[in-house]
Amino acid sequence: MPMEKQTEILTKSKIHELDPLFKPRAIAVIGASAKELSIGNVIIKNLLHYGYTGKIYPINPKESQIRGLKAYPSIFDVEGEIDLAHVIIPGKFVPQIIEDCGKRGIKAVIINSAGFSEMGEEGMALQKAFLDNAKKYGVRIFGPNCQGIINTDPKIRAYCDFTFTFPDPGYISIAALSGGVGAVIMQSIFDLGIGMRLYASNGNAADISLPEVISYYGDDELTKAILLYTEGFSNPKEFMEAARTVAKKKPILAMKAGRTEQGAKAAASHTGSLAGVDISTELIFEKLGILAFRNEEEMCQASMAFATQPIPKGNRVGIITNTGGPAVIATDELVSEGLQVMPLPESARNKLKSTQLPEASLGNPVDVVATGGGTQFRGALDVMMEQDEIDSILINFVTAPFTDTDEVARQIVEVSKMKRKPVVCNFMTNMSMERYRTTAKILNEGGVPCYAFPTTAAKALGALYKFSKLQTRNIGEPKKFSDIDRAKANALLAPVSGRFLTAHEVYNLLSYYRIPLAPWGVAQNAAEAASIARSIGFPVVVKAEASTLIHKSDAGGVVLNLQNENEVRIAVENMNRKIGHTDHVALKFLVQKFIPGGKELIAGASAKKGLGHLIMFGIGGIYVEVLKDITFKLSPVTEIEATEMLSAVRMAKLLDGVRGEKGIDKAKVIELIQRISQLVSDFPQIEEMDINPILAFDDGIWVADARIKIKEQIH
Amino acid sequence: MPMEKQTEILTKSKIHELDPLFKPRAIAVIGASAKELSIGNVIIKNLLHYGYTGKIYPINPKESQIRGLKAYPSIFDVEGEIDLAHVIIPGKFVPQIIEDCGKRGIKAVIINSAGFSEMGEEGMALQKAFLDNAKKYGVRIFGPNCQGIINTDPKIRAYCDFTFTFPDPGYISIAALSGGVGAVIMQSIFDLGIGMRLYASNGNAADISLPEVISYYGDDELTKAILLYTEGFSNPKEFMEAARTVAKKKPILAMKAGRTEQGAKAAASHTGSLAGVDISTELIFEKLGILAFRNEEEMCQASMAFATQPIPKGNRVGIITNTGGPAVIATDELVSEGLQVMPLPESARNKLKSTQLPEASLGNPVDVVATGGGTQFRGALDVMMEQDEIDSILINFVTAPFTDTDEVARQIVEVSKMKRKPVVCNFMTNMSMERYRTTAKILNEGGVPCYAFPTTAAKALGALYKFSKLQTRNIGEPKKFSDIDRAKANALLAPVSGRFLTAHEVYNLLSYYRIPLAPWGVAQNAAEAASIARSIGFPVVVKAEASTLIHKSDAGGVVLNLQNENEVRIAVENMNRKIGHTDHVALKFLVQKFIPGGKELIAGASAKKGLGHLIMFGIGGIYVEVLKDITFKLSPVTEIEATEMLSAVRMAKLLDGVRGEKGIDKAKVIELIQRISQLVSDFPQIEEMDINPILAFDDGIWVADARIKIKEQIH
Repeated sequence: MPMEKQTEILTKSKIHELDPLFKPRAIAVIGASAKELSIGNVIIKNLLHYGYTGKIYPINPKESQIRGLKAYPSIFDVEGEIDLAHVIIPGKFVPQIIEDCGKRGIKAVIINSAGFSEMGEEGMALQKAFLDNAKKYGVRIFGPNCQGIINTDPKIRAYCDFTFTFPDPGYISIAALSGGVGAVIMQSIFDLGIGMRLYASNGNAADISLPEVISYYGDDELTKAILLYTEGFSNPKEFMEAARTVAKKKPILAMKAGRTEQGAKAAASHTGSLAGVDISTELIFEKLGILAFRNEEEMCQASMAFATQPIPKGNRVGIITNTGGPAVIATDELVSEGLQVMPLPESARNKLKSTQLPEASLGNPVDVVATGGGTQFRGALDVMMEQDEIDSILINFVTAPFTDTDEVARQIVEVSKMKRKPVVCNFMTNMSMERYRTTAKILNEGGVPCYAFPTTAAKALGALYKFSKLQTRNIGEPKKFSDIDRAKANALLAPVSGRFLTAHEVYNLLSYYRIPLAPWGVAQNAAEAASIARSIGFPVVVKAEASTLIHKSDAGGVVLNLQNENEVRIAVENMNRKIGHTDHVALKFLVQKFIPGGKELIAGASAKKGLGHLIMFGIGGIYVEVLKDITFKLSPVTEIEATEMLSAVRMAKLLDGVRGEKGIDKAKVIELIQRISQLVSDFPQIEEMDINPILAFDDGIWVADARIKIKEQIH
Repeated sequence: MPMEKQTEILTKSKIHELDPLFKPRAIAVIGASAKELSIGNVIIKNLLHYGYTGKIYPINPKESQIRGLKAYPSIFDVEGEIDLAHVIIPGKFVPQIIEDCGKRGIKAVIINSAGFSEMGEEGMALQKAFLDNAKKYGVRIFGPNCQGIINTDPKIRAYCDFTFTFPDPGYISIAALSGGVGAVIMQSIFDLGIGMRLYASNGNAADISLPEVISYYGDDELTKAILLYTEGFSNPKEFMEAARTVAKKKPILAMKAGRTEQGAKAAASHTGSLAGVDISTELIFEKLGILAFRNEEEMCQASMAFATQPIPKGNRVGIITNTGGPAVIATDELVSEGLQVMPLPESARNKLKSTQLPEASLGNPVDVVATGGGTQFRGALDVMMEQDEIDSILINFVTAPFTDTDEVARQIVEVSKMKRKPVVCNFMTNMSMERYRTTAKILNEGGVPCYAFPTTAAKALGALYKFSKLQTRNIGEPKKFSDIDRAKANALLAPVSGRFLTAHEVYNLLSYYRIPLAPWGVAQNAAEAASIARSIGFPVVVKAEASTLIHKSDAGGVVLNLQNENEVRIAVENMNRKIGHTDHVALKFLVQKFIPGGKELIAGASAKKGLGHLIMFGIGGIYVEVLKDITFKLSPVTEIEATEMLSAVRMAKLLDGVRGEKGIDKAKVIELIQRISQLVSDFPQIEEMDINPILAFDDGIWVADARIKIKEQIH
């Protein structure tokens, strides 16, 4: 590539495609209305109220002026340049307006109007019509059926939204699928007294997607943390690609709603049905290092700490308190969140003595007591900041009426501003009193995140800590096993479409990927079965095989621990009588080495549309049904992730051996999970794979049964 | 008892012993100070600021007047009657002052001062001294080292506290061990805009106890709900007796802190160590029907619903919303809390059509859409109120700028005031705008509990529902088995002190209480063992018995499934070699019927000081270690409670049988738990009892091993 070309691209890239949306220099409000409280009026009112720095052009053929601004009959009557059009007109007129915008050189359009893809076929057609026009002219569409965007930058102050919260500039940007939830989050941020940077809620997201918005936030230098609300991803791959880059640069705090509907659909015995949509969203978050929340209030509260505090280096918390009970509550919650409140070393206690009152308690929590003032708080803070054994600090500060609370606040701010360790404050006061509002202001302007409850403050610190773990977690790259035979697997799978593999096929496929199988053979009748059994060696298990037979065990189609040829023959004949005759199907018989005494594990995979596979691992036997003791990761699974899976099950201890029992060969299971991951990644047509049981011993593992379903293939 | 005597008592009981504390007609502030911001000044300031209706007598020998009130050198210089003294003087002067108060006829004293039992021996002596004086004169003491009390009754308005929150009158009363947490709760109630009735934080609680305060709240007619914070009970029996009566009359919402310290001490293999202090407090709450919280903010938020709403009759929620996302979040949380959001029947949908806009969604949630106003909300509310399939209503109400939000609020209030079903509201607005503050005021004055987040509103409804379950739960009376032989058990236990029972004793004791045992005998040597085995019938298990042998299995002291006399002899000889010789102890051998194939369960009991026993039930085998799948109740355990225990373990499904396996004889296990409960209730000297394993089959259960430890008996 010649040098000039490169430079040109670099220059271009400085003006982002979404700049006309987020940094408009002039906005045309198409469908502006003089009618008080109509959306077309509220939009103009909000732009004016918020002090938008650019030009506003109300477009309305019937009005000469709206809210004191000159109105224009059409965008073609406006003389200056227009970056953004905000459209609030009935859906049927939208395609024509987009065409007009294209002709007028407008680069971005927000469509508040509803009545498109969310309203059936007619709406779909309308949406397609305006999208075609947009594409023709290179116009980017935000919405339709959406709220809009807000940019709090003092140089811009674009409030292109009909909501009612007017945030101060700050460092948190919000992206929300649902405008209602977006508004709740924005309001909460506002109520907490922290600023906001950018806001976007894009409704139907017909063109500009949530991932694009996230990317934009990623590039925006003043966005320090991102709050994301979603109810699922239409294109999870796009989201993953965008968010992967952004999550490396700044914290993303996210919440996905709709988790219980999916949960209700889960069924116990089956990989495919065990893995709901919700699981995959949370797995995406985990894989990318996005901090997931299940409570929007906690997410907002935590964001306050993310906006102002450094990320802690470890889990050891120092508590400074001027009242006992809240420190107990904070300790409970911190410990529940995986943090530790360890006693201070003797040396630190000695240092504390010089600043603390005689009745103070010098352990951890350090109780400076209610009469403790600025000197006592500062003394304790200095010691905690110096102490290597402390990674973060939680302060319980009740505004005792007999202390100089402003001075305490000033000391907290001064130490917190060093930004060496995160500091959060449970600030217990009455904000309706002027005296304490002053104290609060000192803390707030000093960037100390203040919470009204000890549990809330502890949860915020817990979120910082969880994020520090996500941030430092390096899952590595997926291993590529070279001892596998992909060609043979391909030859096996190529002709298969829309059915379960036969036992024969399953066992062959697994063996191509070096998944350890108990020795086996397939027989047509009792004599063959006996002969195979003899060559494998006793004891064996015999399993009836027919495409209609899904739950073999329940139907009497499995007989374990057969000791000789005669027993094998009897077992086969019984199966033929019991199952073969009633179902009028030709049974085959899988004869397999019986390996008693191992721990039963299960593993599997299930394809998720647009997302690869969910890989599953769990404890097998009846416990999979009783306990659902299983865990999931998204493919491709790395060695570190596979290792995490073994620790994630509730019965993890079982794998290490309990009460003199031997543990299992974990390395082999970790390898197995990775081989499954490679197999399904190589062959996306594998819809479901259920390896159950895996018999695990201390010196190896054996797959004893498996089922694999292949998707319908369109050739 | 003669008639006059009865009447006299009844009349007396109308004036409660704690009335002088909570309803003082005159207060002497002993240690009143002219010094601004001193506690002795703040107390007077608060009484004045809050508008105390009685007389205030500042006591200070050096001042003639304090904050505009006449000061007196001593309480003997005051002419009028004094109900309550509020003491803020150094600890060493307190005993004398209490003597003075007694002489002066003062019936109640709040002691703010610290320096007593919390400060070592000298403090203890001081505390004893003033308590002796108090007893002599019948003075009741509140504190020391405490905050005090508040009574918001407009006729009283006693603010005997140095805190800074001045609540409006209401129906919630607060009792908090920790003043700091009490203040947080009071402030939160205030911030939520709900009123408070009574407040008490009694610090060291040297005389007047938390249970007494709870009883007082129980008798106080205007207290509709009680908020309780504790870090444990010094006298759990006293609390149980007081709270049992109160909890039947009004909801008690409670939080106990200090749960993790105890949790850390838990060890896996043992009843005694598995049951921590925290477990017993939560079990007390459960037994009495007290609603337990682990988050003080959630407790306060929930109290708002308890103060204004009826208790729901069931778990079916109707959601009305004017924005989509928050309804999804609310549904998620409701379902997580055990509530249901079921579709409305066709008839209800048809009724809705007459009031809803065309774009409304008529399922459940009913989405009246952002442009929906009072008519739409009212229409939906009326349908939900009429519908038998709906037990409670959650409203998501965002103040869309283009609707008459006041009208919506008025309609919600009107329907909510019918009090037929609980209504909670997630009210999403910007309270810094006058327009919406008006709307909020309508809702708040109308008694509609409003929350800023959908999850918070859902959690409050969840709390109401949980309480409805507690309230309707009748655990019945403990069964008294008459087929037991208490006399024999008594004869066995009477001479035992401070040791484990021998196997022989254990098996005898259990058999006196008709606890089903696998047939057994004790042998001194191999020959005897073989002979016992023969009479029991094969197979048998042999267990080595010696007082030093705690974990028999690990030491090789258990051999299962012995098929004949020879195997028994060999097993005994091996044990003698392996264990007998190395430990230099005389082994005995328990020979017991081996009953293979049952499910292993465990049960047990452990004595809790001042509280009877914790009764434990769980799934046994290696799973007790891996999963800690155990559950506890307080003795005496009723049949209903025992039944609940079987459902409370995580592997409960296992007991019903999984995948064609037979379930177990649950009735026998339920009976066993009750028999254990009766045994430990009859013999409180049983410190620990560990029945492990119980082998459970579909047609009966067998105890295969047990250990019992008896407390040191002082005769």
